Amino acid sequence: MKLYEAIYSRRDVRRFRQEPVADDVLYRILDAAHHTGSVGFMQPWNFILIREENTKLRVKAMFDRENARGAGQFTGERQELYKSLKIEGILEAPLNLCVTCDRGRGGKVLGRNTILDTDIFSTCLAVQNLWLAARAEGVGVGWVSILDNAELSGLLELPATVVPVAYLCIGYPEEFSDTPMLEAAGWRDRIPLEEVVFMERFGGRKPDL
Amino acid sequence: MKLYEAIYSRRDVRRFRQEPVADDVLYRILDAAHHTGSVGFMQPWNFILIREENTKLRVKAMFDRENARGAGQFTGERQELYKSLKIEGILEAPLNLCVTCDRGRGGKVLGRNTILDTDIFSTCLAVQNLWLAARAEGVGVGWVSILDNAELSGLLELPATVVPVAYLCIGYPEEFSDTPMLEAAGWRDRIPLEEVVFMERFGGRKPDL
Repeated sequence: MKLYEAIYSRRDVRRFRQEPVADDVLYRILDAAHHTGSVGFMQPWNFILIREENTKLRVKAMFDRENARGAGQFTGERQELYKSLKIEGILEAPLNLCVTCDRGRGGKVLGRNTILDTDIFSTCLAVQNLWLAARAEGVGVGWVSILDNAELSGLLELPATVVPVAYLCIGYPEEFSDTPMLEAAGWRDRIPLEEVVFMERFGGRKPDL
Repeated sequence: MKLYEAIYSRRDVRRFRQEPVADDVLYRILDAAHHTGSVGFMQPWNFILIREENTKLRVKAMFDRENARGAGQFTGERQELYKSLKIEGILEAPLNLCVTCDRGRGGKVLGRNTILDTDIFSTCLAVQNLWLAARAEGVGVGWVSILDNAELSGLLELPATVVPVAYLCIGYPEEFSDTPMLEAAGWRDRIPLEEVVFMERFGGRKPDL
């Protein structure tokens, strides 16, 4: 699959078919993620593959609890719309995957002395490589962002220096939709590109794009 | 360019040719970044294009100051090696680009109630799309991670809710090398993939990849 095709096609998925991701496919996806550039060649990530039903059930319970609080931030029609959206596929996805960042990996890191979060940033870049590689393999990924990271860290037995960055649901989708779910649902619109680009300084002249 | 080709080829560049990036190429790169999925469809990013020599000079001075401190973390041969590396191309690159994250964009964001840094994470994903799209266009990108973000925010007149995430040097490279610079220089090795993947929990059994 061409790069731009992967970038412009929808990749976020919450409805999965009951078909496992074969090991060779998973290998290519993880290897693509692992070949992400990182500040100081730190490679701070780990990939924890989760298939045990018991773990998924505990993560799902955590999501349900936190999501109820999330829905509580909205009222009226907006809350109804929120509640009607399927925003996770923890139990259905054949594979859950937690991408973590080891904040102490490799000791002193070249390039990580003023902006300490560059390890987290690098880990996020790896998530995007993973996401795009999955799409090229016909595999969908959903990011579950409504979790309690402290609780998740306990569940996955993360050492003190390791933090969760992304909890992903992975599998073959029922479909890849054409439009982001929240745009299709009328929740939020895409911002025109011209509005997010400035020349020289924030709020500066718009370029002729 | 195929996705995997973009992922596996080298993309990080510090030596640039004096050839500007044409507007249509730049548009495709920025549009690819802007089409990144974001938590709650928040699209929290801005892209500030920097070409003014005066800004570049001030950023370079900031880098030089902070980099001297960075080098001071190492001693002996390691420090000599550090100092021998070219790790930025601020003045040579025809284009500098700061990717920022607006932490208040769009008010309450679906999916961003327990992990507030999901806006930063989403912005990082956009950086990776930008990086890969640039590579597909034959354009190289270097990430300058040794800066003072508070000072940079002042220089680029960022509002209080907006933070810098990535300061990038962009242009056509003298070459795309085959190996990450720090690996080629003997600074640090690539970790075998098997060492960063676990089953079920951190430190758990290695999968058969």
